[in-house]
Formats: sequence, C-alpha cells, structure tokens
Amino acid sequence: MEHKYDFGLVGLGVMGRNFILNVADNGFTAFGNDLDTEKVDALIKEGGNPKKVNATTDAKIFLDALSTPRKIMLLVPAGKVVDIVIENLLPNLDEGDIIIDGGNSFYTDTDRREAYLSKKGINFFGAGVSGGAKGARKGPSIMPGGNREAYRHVKPIFEAVSAKYEGEPCVAYLGPKSAGNYVKMVHNGIEYGLMQLTSEIYDVLKKGGNLTNDELHATYAKWNAGRLQSFLVEITSKIFQQKDDLGDGRLVDKILDKAKQKGTGKWTSQNAMDLGIPVPSIDIAVSMREISALKQERITADQLYERPTVECMDKEKLERLAEESLYFSFIITYAQGLHQLADASKEYGYELDIAVIAKIWRAGCIIRAGLLADIAQAFQADNNLPNLLLSPTFVEKVQSTVNAARKLVSYGAVNGIPLPGLSNSLTYFDAYTSTRLPLNVIQAQRDYFGSHTYERMDREGIFHTEWE
Amino acid sequence: MEHKYDFGLVGLGVMGRNFILNVADNGFTAFGNDLDTEKVDALIKEGGNPKKVNATTDAKIFLDALSTPRKIMLLVPAGKVVDIVIENLLPNLDEGDIIIDGGNSFYTDTDRREAYLSKKGINFFGAGVSGGAKGARKGPSIMPGGNREAYRHVKPIFEAVSAKYEGEPCVAYLGPKSAGNYVKMVHNGIEYGLMQLTSEIYDVLKKGGNLTNDELHATYAKWNAGRLQSFLVEITSKIFQQKDDLGDGRLVDKILDKAKQKGTGKWTSQNAMDLGIPVPSIDIAVSMREISALKQERITADQLYERPTVECMDKEKLERLAEESLYFSFIITYAQGLHQLADASKEYGYELDIAVIAKIWRAGCIIRAGLLADIAQAFQADNNLPNLLLSPTFVEKVQSTVNAARKLVSYGAVNGIPLPGLSNSLTYFDAYTSTRLPLNVIQAQRDYFGSHTYERMDREGIFHTEWE
Repeated sequence: MEHKYDFGLVGLGVMGRNFILNVADNGFTAFGNDLDTEKVDALIKEGGNPKKVNATTDAKIFLDALSTPRKIMLLVPAGKVVDIVIENLLPNLDEGDIIIDGGNSFYTDTDRREAYLSKKGINFFGAGVSGGAKGARKGPSIMPGGNREAYRHVKPIFEAVSAKYEGEPCVAYLGPKSAGNYVKMVHNGIEYGLMQLTSEIYDVLKKGGNLTNDELHATYAKWNAGRLQSFLVEITSKIFQQKDDLGDGRLVDKILDKAKQKGTGKWTSQNAMDLGIPVPSIDIAVSMREISALKQERITADQLYERPTVECMDKEKLERLAEESLYFSFIITYAQGLHQLADASKEYGYELDIAVIAKIWRAGCIIRAGLLADIAQAFQADNNLPNLLLSPTFVEKVQSTVNAARKLVSYGAVNGIPLPGLSNSLTYFDAYTSTRLPLNVIQAQRDYFGSHTYERMDREGIFHTEWE
Repeated sequence: MEHKYDFGLVGLGVMGRNFILNVADNGFTAFGNDLDTEKVDALIKEGGNPKKVNATTDAKIFLDALSTPRKIMLLVPAGKVVDIVIENLLPNLDEGDIIIDGGNSFYTDTDRREAYLSKKGINFFGAGVSGGAKGARKGPSIMPGGNREAYRHVKPIFEAVSAKYEGEPCVAYLGPKSAGNYVKMVHNGIEYGLMQLTSEIYDVLKKGGNLTNDELHATYAKWNAGRLQSFLVEITSKIFQQKDDLGDGRLVDKILDKAKQKGTGKWTSQNAMDLGIPVPSIDIAVSMREISALKQERITADQLYERPTVECMDKEKLERLAEESLYFSFIITYAQGLHQLADASKEYGYELDIAVIAKIWRAGCIIRAGLLADIAQAFQADNNLPNLLLSPTFVEKVQSTVNAARKLVSYGAVNGIPLPGLSNSLTYFDAYTSTRLPLNVIQAQRDYFGSHTYERMDREGIFHTEWE
C-alpha cells in the first residue's frame, strides 16, 4: 500500500469512532481497526474520503497502512481485552512503534504492559481520555504518560485533537509509566465527588425549598454563569429541563435512583488508603452509590423509621447557602484529589506537575470548571503546595463559604436530609485545619490494649505505659 | 522424647507467651518455639514446670515434642514471616497435622496457604485472635476458619482458653478457608469505627462542655455502667485518670494526636468497596487517622483559617446528647460491619452465621460490648437479616437516639468541632432509610456525558436519552 496513514486506532465503538473523526478533522490521516465489520463500514462511510479515514477488520492490513513509527491508539474496554489486542498487534510491529491505551486501565496494568513492551522496543502509553463521546469528537482532555522521548511523535496529533482552553491544548506529557492512567483515575474520583455534591444539593433544594424542576434548572444555570461554572453544573441545569418522551413531566423524576459505577472512583478511594491520603469526599461518593443500589432495603427501612418533618427554609436563603456550600465542597474535593496526586507522584516516581494537570483539566474533561484556572495558578505559584487549602489565594474562597456549609450541614442533619458529601467536606476541613485532634485518645487506647506505644507532645521518643 | 505435648506455638512474643501460658493454665501441655533464645528461656522460666510448658529454638525438637495430629499455632507478624515459618515446619510435618495462623493475615494470603497446604495433607486454619496481650493471657475471643472436620482437634483447647460470656466460650468454628481471618479483619474495621467515635465524643465534651479529665472519666465510667457498656468505653474512662509519670497532670493531655494504624481497618474499607457494601463509619475512621498523621500541615492550616468560637452547651444536656449519639453511632457501625460480613459470606462461600459471630464477640475481644448480646439475639431471631437496622428489636433503640445525633452533628458543624464518625453514621442512616435518594441525577449525568444508560421508576428496561 502506498498511502500511509498518520494514526491508527483499534476499537471503533462510539469513543473510538468519534476520536478518529476528530483526528481526521484536524488534518491527519487515520486508519481504524475493529473486528466488527459493521463498525468498520460505518466509519468508512462517515469519514467520507478513504484516503483520509479508512478502516479494516484485518490487523495485518491495519498495521501495513500506518506510517512508522506507528502511532496506534486503543479505545477498547479496560482489562483483558487490552492484552489480547496488544498480543494481536505485536508480531507485526516494528521497534519504535507506539501503542497508546486510551481506556481507563488500572495503573498497575499499565506499568506491567509498559515494562513488557519496552523490552520489545515498543513504546507504550497509558493516556486517560475524558470528555465522553462528545469530547472525543470535539476535543477531549487527554492525560498521557509513558516514555518522554517517544511522546514527541504523538504530541502534534494529541495537541491538535484535544480541547483548547484559551488556545492552550488540554493535553500534556504527564510523566513516566502509568502516570497518565493514574491521573485519569483520580480525575474520575474527583468526578464522583462532584457528582455526589451536585445531587445532594439538588435534594436539599427540593426538600428544603420545594424548588420545581424549572426553578432547579434556573438555579443551576445561574450558578453555572458564576464562580461555579463547570460542565457538571451546566449539564445538571439542563437535566432538569429534559422532557420525558415516554410520559408526562420531566425525565429526571422518572429515573431510578440506583447509581451504577464502573470502578474508577472505587480505585481512587482504595489507592488513597494505600497511600495514606485522606479523600473522604470521594470515599463517601462511592458509598452513596452503593447505598443507592440497595433500593429494596431502603424501602423496607423507610417503613420502619420515622423521619423528621422538614422545616422549609426561605428559598432565597437556601439558594445562597447551597451555592456557597457547593463552591466550598467543590474546592475541598479538588483539594483531596490533588493531594492524592502529589503523594502518588512521590510514591510511584511520576514527577507530576500539578499545575499542568489543573491546566489540562480546564477544558474538555468532565470535571472542567472555572475553579481549575484558579487551581492551576495556585500550583504555578507554588508547585510544592502539599494541599490546595494551604494556598494563600484559596484561603479567602474557603473562609468566605465555609459558614454556609456549616449551616447547611446542620440543616440537613436536623431535618433528616442526607448531605454526606458536604458533611465529609466540612469535617475534613475542620480536621485538616485543627492543630490538635482528639486522636491522642486513640493512641492511648492502642497502647492500652495492644502495647502499640505512642509519641508525646513535649518530648521526642516512643513511649509505652503500663495502664492502671 | 517420651512426653508428648498437646499444643505447639511458634512465636513467643508477648501474645505468644501469654497464649501458651493460658493453654497451660487450662490443663493442656504446651511447647513453644522461637528463634530467640531469650524468649525461649523466659517462657520456660515463667512456665515453672517443663513437663507442662516447654520451649526450644529448634524446629525439629519442637515438632518431635508434639502429639499427633500436631496442633501448631503461629503468632508471628502477618506477611512473609508466616510463609517462612510454614516452609520451616513443612519437611517434618505428618499428614493430618494442623497449623493455625493466629495473626492478622490478609484473607487472600490465608486462602493461598490453605490451598497449598491442603494438597500436602496439612490442615491450615486462619484464626483471628482479639483481646490484646491481656486477652491472650486471660481469655481472648478466637475466630477460627478452615477445615470443619479438623476443627474438632483444636476445639477443646480453644474453648478452654477463650474468654467466656455467661459460661459460653467466645470461640466457634466460623467457616471454610479464610472465614476466620476475614471476620477478624471486619472486627478490626468496626474497632476503628468505635475508637474514632469515642475519641470525637471526647472532643465535643471537652470543647463544648469544658469537661475536665476527672469529669470525662466519670462520664465514660457512668456510660460503661449503662447501655454503652463496652471494653472501649471502659478503658477510655480509665485513660482520663492515668497520671503522667514524666510530668504534672494527666498522661492523655501529653500524648501526641497522630494515630498510627496497622492496616486492618484500611483492608476492611477497601474490601467493602470491592463488595459494594457501604461502611462509611469505618472509612472515615481510616481517613481520620490519616489526617491526624498530617500534623505539620494541620498546624500550618490552623494558622491560615479562622475557626468559629465554640458556644458552650449546658453540660448535662451535652452529656445526654453525647451518650445517645454514641449509642446510636455504635449501632450504626456494628450494622455496617455485619452487613459487610453477610455479603462477604455469600461472595466468598464462608457460610457465616452472624449470630454466632456476635456471640463470640460478647467477651474477650476489643469490640466486646453489651450491645453484642442484643445483636446476637437479633440475628438469632432472623439470620437472614440483611442489615441490623431492619431488626424489629433495633428500631426503637435507633429511633430513640437518632435525634440526639442530629443535634450533636448540627452543633459540631456550626461550632467547628469535627464529628466525622458521627456525621457519617447519621448520613448513612438517613440515606439507608430513604426510599428515594437524589442519585437519579447522577444516573442522568452519567447518561448525559457517557451514554451509560439508566433505569426508570415506572417501567422495566434500560434506557438512554439523547439529551438536549
């Protein structure tokens, strides 16, 4: 074959098809590969010109069609499929070729694959891609990690197809090995936290202020025009407007309240625990999806217990408290996730630049938000910031909104409206800003029953007491 | 050697030495093994009569001294040491011999060892032992899992040495494979939760009621004489009385507020997430230990933020709210841990009897509490209870105390006193007892940006919307 293509992509599902069309839109030629003939044909048809966008079910034809070093992106389900696809490609790859896993692979899988392939002279990248189907088509945020030197081959294409924030591409080389997948995992953990917060704020507005769907739409839309500007607040405002095609009223009221999960939020929480970094606003978002799934138990429990009658709050006041609380708890959730990234960077040798990460999250991805420009600036000013809460530019933002969170948590507790994400953001803040916590008692207990020893406030050393 | 011993024990640290002396006290002969000559000599000396309690550094002599089938308990640090000890023993074991790992081994390690050893005809038990050094000496709670048939050889010894609750031994065969280690892991997760709760209630009593250490002692002692009767409340009351040997005042005020952890709480949380079972009162206890470790960051953060001035509460009222809140949140924490056990039992084929587990926790172990007798009864009445909160006998206990938790959470939020364990217990309760949660919005968001589909309230099926 004479004509060689710039970019190859395996897996022509909705994400893969959209990504490849995006590549073609940006002046690169692209070749797709999928076992499914229908998907292959659909892409060729949608691409319009086979010299620009082509596809095949045959792996050999696919590889022959790519210019070297080959740049092959995989957009296939995370897990065994990735290994199978790699093994399929391997016999016909040349040294220096590049494979980019664009799925939500677990970071240790990426490390394993990178080590395996680098021995064979193949450069393997784990690249998180966020933005959903629309993002893949119009410009996602891309989080690549792998061999720094080899990245130059991929860079022009990724910078062209990625989302832009004030002209800056939302993609950057993030670090070696699984850095890209790890960053994407924590991105998704933050996403879980923010989604939980937007949902529970909806709950309190509805129960505490009797807001209609139209009022909820207007409230979230107004917030999205202010400091809460973000993709999630924006789509939530639109969700309240969506009509139900299958019946009267709004769709949101018909959707079952059992939230599913695909595991990246859970991984974030589990790994944060391995690192010893507290991310309770993410942990609780995982828990709430689990509780939501226990629908039948909840119905039974609801019949057994009495709930306080909600004492409604002045609508305007409630909306103000809700906006400030959401802003406060968004900041806390980003702070926790970035804290985890900073620690993981040391632990796994990722050499992450948190400011760069915040920058490439400013557009394209699901957690994009106006706040991220401020966050990027805070870490540009001090890239060794252990926690966003310690940034001088964030003190005022947090201090001026925490009192609303106090009032709303209190209101939810007294009125039986669960605000677990907000509560955990507040107690995290109150604990993180406490010189003295009551965990001296826990150390005393541990020494009492297990002789686990303790440290003292007033002198160095390790102590044990024979408790009376 | 003519005289054969009933029981062997490897690892003569404080737990091992105490356990073996306990075995001897109960009329069995016991033989210890440790590489450390000092520990071997110390045990022989403390044992008094080498025909009853003997020890050696030599593995061969040790094994020759035991009657068959040998019953060999390991009380060595979890991890590689267990494998090393097993490999050391293996060449001189006979078919039918029994090894019991009494440490906090991770349950998958136990499954691996059990499978490996059963091929060689050796019965391997993972047996959680709780009660600390004193418990090992005077009667621990023992949680054994492994081969049901082989358990009869161990049963008389374990029943003799274990703690007794109204004459009933606090040990029972729990299930196959790693059932014992798994139950002990969740025991420790519950322990983390209860410890966090006792510590934060101390905090609110001190900050909100200015209770002195003497008053705190009296309060916890009074609680321990009531429905909160438990080992942890009891020792906490004593902790407030302990004088500081190295200075004036009470020791509790000198102990550094950085809580350490050995991992079993973290494992509980991480595994609960794998199962999809919400245990937020345990998760947050893990988080709080992590936050406590960030002492330097906390000091810096404390200087950056203003805290509300605490508005003190009437002491009597505060004590009542605290007692009810602690009782409420203890119940919630047990409920979460037992919920996890019930689910793990199905997932891993443990065939657990939750009533039996509650019974063997009634004495000897760290989480022993008057409540456990009630919990045992609740599960005896209905062993398929998915959650303790659904037990008719618990509805009144919970309903009559939840309002205190509402008030105290509210008070902590407004006054900047972090009560994360109590908050999570309350939001868990409020969510678990809600027929309708706001997670319909999360499902809408997931379908909006990721085409992840949703279910509906009013009809069967899986739906996707092209959102406007």
